[in-house]
Amino acid sequence: MAVLPPNVSQETFSAAIREFQAAVGSEWVFTSDEDLHPFRDHFSYIKDQPNELIPSAAVGPDTVEQVQAVVRTANKYKIPLYSISTGKNFAYGGPSPNVRGSVTVDLKRMNRVLEVDDKRHYALVEPGVSYIDLYRHIQDRGLKVWIDTPDPGWGSPIGNALDHGIGYTMGFFRDHFGAHCGMEVVLPNGEVMRTGMGALPGSKSWHEYKHGYGPDPSGLFGQGNFGIVTKMGFRLMPQPEHWRTGLITVPKRNDFIPLVDAVNYLSDMAMIGEPWYGSGLFQLMGNTEFNEAAQAFNAEEMDRQAARANLHSWQVEVQFYGSERTTLSSWEYAQELVARSIPAARFTDGESLKVPLTKEQIQKSTTSYPSRMRRNVTQGVPGLGIWYMTGRSEQNPNAWDETHIGLFSLVARSGEAVFQAQRDFADIANRLGMRSAFSNAVATPVNWYPFSFLMGNGFGVRGDNSPDGKKRAAQMLRRVLQENAKLGYGDYRAPPMIQDDVADQYSFNDYALRRFNEALKDSIDPNGILSPGRAGIWPAAYRSLRGSMRG
Amino acid sequence: MAVLPPNVSQETFSAAIREFQAAVGSEWVFTSDEDLHPFRDHFSYIKDQPNELIPSAAVGPDTVEQVQAVVRTANKYKIPLYSISTGKNFAYGGPSPNVRGSVTVDLKRMNRVLEVDDKRHYALVEPGVSYIDLYRHIQDRGLKVWIDTPDPGWGSPIGNALDHGIGYTMGFFRDHFGAHCGMEVVLPNGEVMRTGMGALPGSKSWHEYKHGYGPDPSGLFGQGNFGIVTKMGFRLMPQPEHWRTGLITVPKRNDFIPLVDAVNYLSDMAMIGEPWYGSGLFQLMGNTEFNEAAQAFNAEEMDRQAARANLHSWQVEVQFYGSERTTLSSWEYAQELVARSIPAARFTDGESLKVPLTKEQIQKSTTSYPSRMRRNVTQGVPGLGIWYMTGRSEQNPNAWDETHIGLFSLVARSGEAVFQAQRDFADIANRLGMRSAFSNAVATPVNWYPFSFLMGNGFGVRGDNSPDGKKRAAQMLRRVLQENAKLGYGDYRAPPMIQDDVADQYSFNDYALRRFNEALKDSIDPNGILSPGRAGIWPAAYRSLRGSMRG
Repeated sequence: MAVLPPNVSQETFSAAIREFQAAVGSEWVFTSDEDLHPFRDHFSYIKDQPNELIPSAAVGPDTVEQVQAVVRTANKYKIPLYSISTGKNFAYGGPSPNVRGSVTVDLKRMNRVLEVDDKRHYALVEPGVSYIDLYRHIQDRGLKVWIDTPDPGWGSPIGNALDHGIGYTMGFFRDHFGAHCGMEVVLPNGEVMRTGMGALPGSKSWHEYKHGYGPDPSGLFGQGNFGIVTKMGFRLMPQPEHWRTGLITVPKRNDFIPLVDAVNYLSDMAMIGEPWYGSGLFQLMGNTEFNEAAQAFNAEEMDRQAARANLHSWQVEVQFYGSERTTLSSWEYAQELVARSIPAARFTDGESLKVPLTKEQIQKSTTSYPSRMRRNVTQGVPGLGIWYMTGRSEQNPNAWDETHIGLFSLVARSGEAVFQAQRDFADIANRLGMRSAFSNAVATPVNWYPFSFLMGNGFGVRGDNSPDGKKRAAQMLRRVLQENAKLGYGDYRAPPMIQDDVADQYSFNDYALRRFNEALKDSIDPNGILSPGRAGIWPAAYRSLRGSMRG
Repeated sequence: MAVLPPNVSQETFSAAIREFQAAVGSEWVFTSDEDLHPFRDHFSYIKDQPNELIPSAAVGPDTVEQVQAVVRTANKYKIPLYSISTGKNFAYGGPSPNVRGSVTVDLKRMNRVLEVDDKRHYALVEPGVSYIDLYRHIQDRGLKVWIDTPDPGWGSPIGNALDHGIGYTMGFFRDHFGAHCGMEVVLPNGEVMRTGMGALPGSKSWHEYKHGYGPDPSGLFGQGNFGIVTKMGFRLMPQPEHWRTGLITVPKRNDFIPLVDAVNYLSDMAMIGEPWYGSGLFQLMGNTEFNEAAQAFNAEEMDRQAARANLHSWQVEVQFYGSERTTLSSWEYAQELVARSIPAARFTDGESLKVPLTKEQIQKSTTSYPSRMRRNVTQGVPGLGIWYMTGRSEQNPNAWDETHIGLFSLVARSGEAVFQAQRDFADIANRLGMRSAFSNAVATPVNWYPFSFLMGNGFGVRGDNSPDGKKRAAQMLRRVLQENAKLGYGDYRAPPMIQDDVADQYSFNDYALRRFNEALKDSIDPNGILSPGRAGIWPAAYRSLRGSMRG
């Protein structure tokens, strides 16, 4: 199983390993198959295949200086590094690198919460800090701030933000990269750089003003390979005094269009947190007669069957943060606004809880109305509850995705665009002969990003469990990505195995953006050592590998 | 007056001019002193001096293709360009370039509003569009969105955002660069690139999802010289149904600390728009006894005199966007929250207006409570009202700043930090023997950026009107910048004349950020033709000019 970095001899590799050991301590350098087991993607389509994306070694620095030393050694011996933090990165390739034989830089030991300010509302953390760590730090000290946590909460605020991950509270905070404010980065040459006001020694505004002075390169570090982020500030939501939810249901298929308009309005006025869309008709999907109507996108017939089954076509759960009275008046206003354009809409009060929540309330909310899928994340409480809904198929016959590949395409934020995407994705699935759990007439968008809709598609792809079956499934995935792109649908994130394929979707003007980014990459990483190939950005030294790391 | 670009012969320059004429039409290429008059900074400290930052020519492209042609010609003849859009850029150097002899690329003709969506809440504009243009476009069509406009409104949303400019409504929207979503850029090599979802042909989410896929270089174009932005999308606030203001006053100096905490809370919960701080004691500044107490930062004595004069120490105006009831319940909550920590606080209802505002209401609000300084900008109505407060000193004896140099330093967002900055700035002014309108015990911060305080300082510097007097004033300004930086205060924006000085403030790790940015710059602009020296980023070809463009 032992593997070497590309074009690196055993001798050179051994010399590098000795330097890594000198830098971080030999107990924090891993090379045996057993030690490297946790650094593989055990859900990979190409697990155990000769092209599996596995590292040649892993190193665990504890300080910024150690990260610098590791980077300098990698430059000296021209060894590609791949940096990861904490969490599992399920659905996005786990810890597996972009280039087989990379040395994984595991930042888990750098797990210090450096600062939490509950008057100026920010935190400064290291990459090994998890959402759960940060939450506990805040709770233990009784600080009056809420975090915005993704699902599950074992991940790293830094890692998640850099992957453009999301959460479930108010719009500004749930765009985790957007809510960052100031970072410290070890550059490919081993130097330390700080962005924003961090570039000014002694500034007190590092986590309050993000643009700094002059051009701001911080966007290059998100889904990028321009440096290893060693500290990052995040804006935090003040702890609200009250949290409230409400459920809005509308009877007819076409009611979805004005419903989305009203929710967009409330959302962009910052009156609601993450809205959660669903369809009451999901439960009719097993019904042949309904399926026929749904497959034909026959709104009238679907409405008829919905009425007969006494089910609503669409629903959205909305949530409010504030005082008891402000949340109530916002909820009442939401009802008034929706009823103006959809007189038949119905409104159900959800939970209405004084904050801080008691332990019992936090427990209770995991199983209460409207669904345990929401759990505590809308209250900034990190957990692991999401795993009830997935798992490997041999263990869970209901699992949606044995390969754990998450694919979400951007869809315009309107009801019409969602209807169009339902048709487009169903059409693609039909043409490719693919079963898809998400490409149908009752599929709903997620509004994780405050101004965007994402719709899952493609990750219902399954092969049989043979290597060839998995290969076919991987090929199918790539065809889905190509077909999506032809219709203007692009993905926001991807595991290493298909990073080049998603990058290929973004082809405007002969890949002008990718070529620009690669020119930048070459200028600051001439040996191409930092995560070559990440998000399709290949440095000159490894550019010939583009497209070769697929299943 | 005729000037050539650095190291360019008259012959080469003439050849370039002929190509510019072929590209944009000869009527849109300007070279005479008279034609170039509007492209100078008439408030410059170095006006009419041999080092005045004036262009050698100006060109006015009308299309993206023409911008591309201009950039290609500039590369061919190695001529530095300096791109500007619309507005006057008073206080930040007007249209003057960073390098004397640059060719100004004036984008005013590219003034098309390409799209305004009042359901998905965004606009796509060209650089020559002004806030007034965009406002009129929206009003003429009855679209239900508000813009966030700076003051004055003749500027360009693109130009303002790229300069990290600000407005006066809700936090997210008034960070103009932060609220952008998707740009199109002509790169230094003449190619067109689109960021975010614009990199995916046919995407419908260009102005709804900004991160796109992979590393996002868009931050490099803000206060940067990495490309000429030809299109930019902006998130817009939905038109609220109601707008309301309230005034909070607190009697004592130290009440400012809990006041800021409460306002931070409301602001970060997105319950209020821009809060506007002031001091009731400003009017006592002419009083010798008060001045003595203020200069000693004697809180007790200042409180005594405030009480005797029946004046409040501090005030903040807050504003609410929503429905009549939601704005009322937020205002009531604001009062409750402030009263908890400051029982002596007083609350005065301000305006409470149904939206859309009538013409009369828009007029009325320019002069009504609490001050005409607020004018219409908090309602997204662009205007020119700010000019009452400034002007050249020969015309307006009350003018604060004859040289129109705006300097604002980042200060931590707490009352304690503001008190410290008052002392620090007063101390610097005293040590340098400088009169300063802003460095005193009643100076208040502006909360333009949602999570930051900025405090004006340094721009009260005046010399006499002789060239030497102006030179001394310019030198004084630079000393202020140096002294500020020593105490951790950095500026967020600067006119060309002092861009290197502000850049010098950001010195962390031997200017790691600037060196990184300059490495990137060199990689994509090998001839250094795009706005060399902007924000202190000098390309290799012009790097020897660093620091030479000062007064």
